Amino acid sequence: MDKKQLIEDDLKYIWRPFTQMKSLEDESNKPIIIKKGKGIYLEDIDGNKYIDAVSSWWVNTLGHSNPRINKAIYKQAKKIEHVIFAGFSHKPVIKFSKKLIEMMNNNLKHVFFSDNGSTAVEVALKMAYQYQVLKGHSEKRKFIALKNSYHGDTLGAISVGGIDMYHKVYKPLLFEIRQAESPYCYRCPMGCNKETCNTECLSSVENILKEEADNIAGIIIEPLVQAAGGMIMYPPEYITKLRTLCDKYNILLIDDEVAMGFYRTGKLFAYEHAGIVPDIICAAKGITAGYMPLSVTVTTDEIFNAFYDDDKDGYKTFYHGHSYTAYPLALAVALENLKILEEMNIEEYLKPKIAKFKKELEKFKNHKNVGDVRQTGMICAVELVKDKKTKEPFSYEDGIGKKIYLEGLKLGAILRPMWNCIYFITPYIITEKEIEKLTNIAYEALNRVLPDKEQ
Amino acid sequence: MDKKQLIEDDLKYIWRPFTQMKSLEDESNKPIIIKKGKGIYLEDIDGNKYIDAVSSWWVNTLGHSNPRINKAIYKQAKKIEHVIFAGFSHKPVIKFSKKLIEMMNNNLKHVFFSDNGSTAVEVALKMAYQYQVLKGHSEKRKFIALKNSYHGDTLGAISVGGIDMYHKVYKPLLFEIRQAESPYCYRCPMGCNKETCNTECLSSVENILKEEADNIAGIIIEPLVQAAGGMIMYPPEYITKLRTLCDKYNILLIDDEVAMGFYRTGKLFAYEHAGIVPDIICAAKGITAGYMPLSVTVTTDEIFNAFYDDDKDGYKTFYHGHSYTAYPLALAVALENLKILEEMNIEEYLKPKIAKFKKELEKFKNHKNVGDVRQTGMICAVELVKDKKTKEPFSYEDGIGKKIYLEGLKLGAILRPMWNCIYFITPYIITEKEIEKLTNIAYEALNRVLPDKEQ
Repeated sequence: MDKKQLIEDDLKYIWRPFTQMKSLEDESNKPIIIKKGKGIYLEDIDGNKYIDAVSSWWVNTLGHSNPRINKAIYKQAKKIEHVIFAGFSHKPVIKFSKKLIEMMNNNLKHVFFSDNGSTAVEVALKMAYQYQVLKGHSEKRKFIALKNSYHGDTLGAISVGGIDMYHKVYKPLLFEIRQAESPYCYRCPMGCNKETCNTECLSSVENILKEEADNIAGIIIEPLVQAAGGMIMYPPEYITKLRTLCDKYNILLIDDEVAMGFYRTGKLFAYEHAGIVPDIICAAKGITAGYMPLSVTVTTDEIFNAFYDDDKDGYKTFYHGHSYTAYPLALAVALENLKILEEMNIEEYLKPKIAKFKKELEKFKNHKNVGDVRQTGMICAVELVKDKKTKEPFSYEDGIGKKIYLEGLKLGAILRPMWNCIYFITPYIITEKEIEKLTNIAYEALNRVLPDKEQ
Repeated sequence: MDKKQLIEDDLKYIWRPFTQMKSLEDESNKPIIIKKGKGIYLEDIDGNKYIDAVSSWWVNTLGHSNPRINKAIYKQAKKIEHVIFAGFSHKPVIKFSKKLIEMMNNNLKHVFFSDNGSTAVEVALKMAYQYQVLKGHSEKRKFIALKNSYHGDTLGAISVGGIDMYHKVYKPLLFEIRQAESPYCYRCPMGCNKETCNTECLSSVENILKEEADNIAGIIIEPLVQAAGGMIMYPPEYITKLRTLCDKYNILLIDDEVAMGFYRTGKLFAYEHAGIVPDIICAAKGITAGYMPLSVTVTTDEIFNAFYDDDKDGYKTFYHGHSYTAYPLALAVALENLKILEEMNIEEYLKPKIAKFKKELEKFKNHKNVGDVRQTGMICAVELVKDKKTKEPFSYEDGIGKKIYLEGLKLGAILRPMWNCIYFITPYIITEKEIEKLTNIAYEALNRVLPDKEQ
């Protein structure tokens, strides 16, 4: 099949995620057919190579087509690819769970498996609510969630989402939540600024709790970075203080580490930066180094024990499962991934790369359309504005992100700006030289779309 | 690690799906550690072999550790394991989508990918509702679902679920539906019987539509078999007539083929038996021959076109996606699976096996505790009752299913009765001799737990 035919068939038969299909009539929007990947590079069927600066939706950590992971999959497939996970088990899942809990080394003790970030969040929400019911608090049925939050695309996950364009239309199918302010430091909802910030925006959470903590099961957050909301970053103190609020008002802290977990922020999980432990965490994406769907929801003895009972009628059981729950293929990959990260001494390994990104981000700061430059570990973002002083944003119709994306492709990198943010979420194995190359490409793409006349 | 340690670690670190964890204190309930699989057999770390009579949650079709599929995975991993599916594509997904649509050869034309059965259903519900909104019918926000139905464990999927033990506790988090009668022929809700059935139970659907079709977006069904509800089977005429009702009252027919699809009923999809075409179908499980999570939601031009627009503000886009949407590893497997099924001439291949199951099921019919014996293609079920005349069911506390499960293990088969039903959902490659062996094991297990004194 030639390229033209492949693209034609793609558009004819496939309905693509998050995509207005009519936009693909435009020649510049045709899907790019990827033939192979190696390390940080993806190669299309014409032989063009691109730095995967988005880690293929923030999942790839050890590079594409990693030989060790490839072998681990094949080895596992030749033993057993999948076995029903009710009543049965297998070594990879036991070893992985033990290793993960030991690495966390805190009050989070029990691993529940599901298939992706959305389901990990659904598990957390169901678990939190049922926990409250089992504790005699069935009136605690609402959750607090933040503006600009994204927790997945299933209807439970959408209920706690806060991005209108994604979530608004489904409103009649969603459960009731209370929405608190987004800790969007660059555009502080309290009118404060970063330098003198005292996490004033947390008052919007506490105000809700003062009103009706008795009706609240828990609060769900994306720790340190509201990623899909536009790489909005906020300080660890927010989470530290939020933990105190949750304890004071007796609600659960659900920490959605789907995008941040497995060292994206420089630590195993982002909550570690805040020196606290959540009641429930969700993790996915990097768990398999970017190979295949798998997720975990991890919780405490306190929550686990509330379900632990003789349960003659079955109503204290946590009924949730998917056909491929904890399938051996993915667990063999996840286990190999943990081993590799350990051998790499990953926290130390990332430090010079994080520092290099910090240095290279400097070049964006003086650009007339750069409003904010921010970084949390291996996540970097550059927020573009029409006017630096007023912080006026570009509108959806301006299509700035799309234009930069197209320039990036020409220059050899997959930049995929999120709203008005150019961001970098690369595989961890990117070298310092490649960081320089990538940020130069991004700067050049930016300058082609929005020339910096002041320079 | 020895077995004792593995089991201890398993129970310490893992919260198992659909499981009251306290029940695992019982020695007979400890998880069985599976070491390898081959064809229809699973082998534990003590060397015990079991026929996988449940296809590891109804997914395995071509046998465990299938050499061709193993090679297809490894080959794909060495090219590219995963690439972001917005803006990018790859050959396996294009070839698979084209092949699937061509095999269906009807009005279902557009494939939307997600990760598992629950998400395929969430996609269908969101798509159906948003379609109604885009057509100007935002008041069409309720769905009709059937008693005893199961569509997955995320909160949208639970909303259309009808099994109290799984779903009741989450009620405050669910959206509003209308529930119609279950087409449970053996226990007909209309008091009719199979022999003279005229699908009277459909009147409960029509009554709802007469009341408020203007508020109904669609109806969702499991075609021919309500599987998790207890392998409840009903005739294709139900679906044929339901299609007519949907057209008459202008609602969408959503067909959840997650368990039935990919030849489980003897045809590619179960709706084919009814000679109709649904508006949306969901499929998963067998799509990867039992290897890894992947699902599709397939729909018509009519629905697809309602979203197809210039869409300046983004509100006509279908916003749904998962990190691993259409990941190449799974698509390479799904494509190889379709090729293998085609080479096997699968419909013809299954006919003698279906006939052999039919023959072997005869031996259960006279047992004093067998109320009903039923079969739909490669799904067979034997419903047990306390009293054949009154059809009085065993209670949850009787634990009949659990006892038969344990006897099955001793005899070398994984029978995992669903409520009061012994069932067989085996890999398609089971031989006629193995069908005889398996049904003999099941009969022996049944007789050990409930001796047939009448014999």
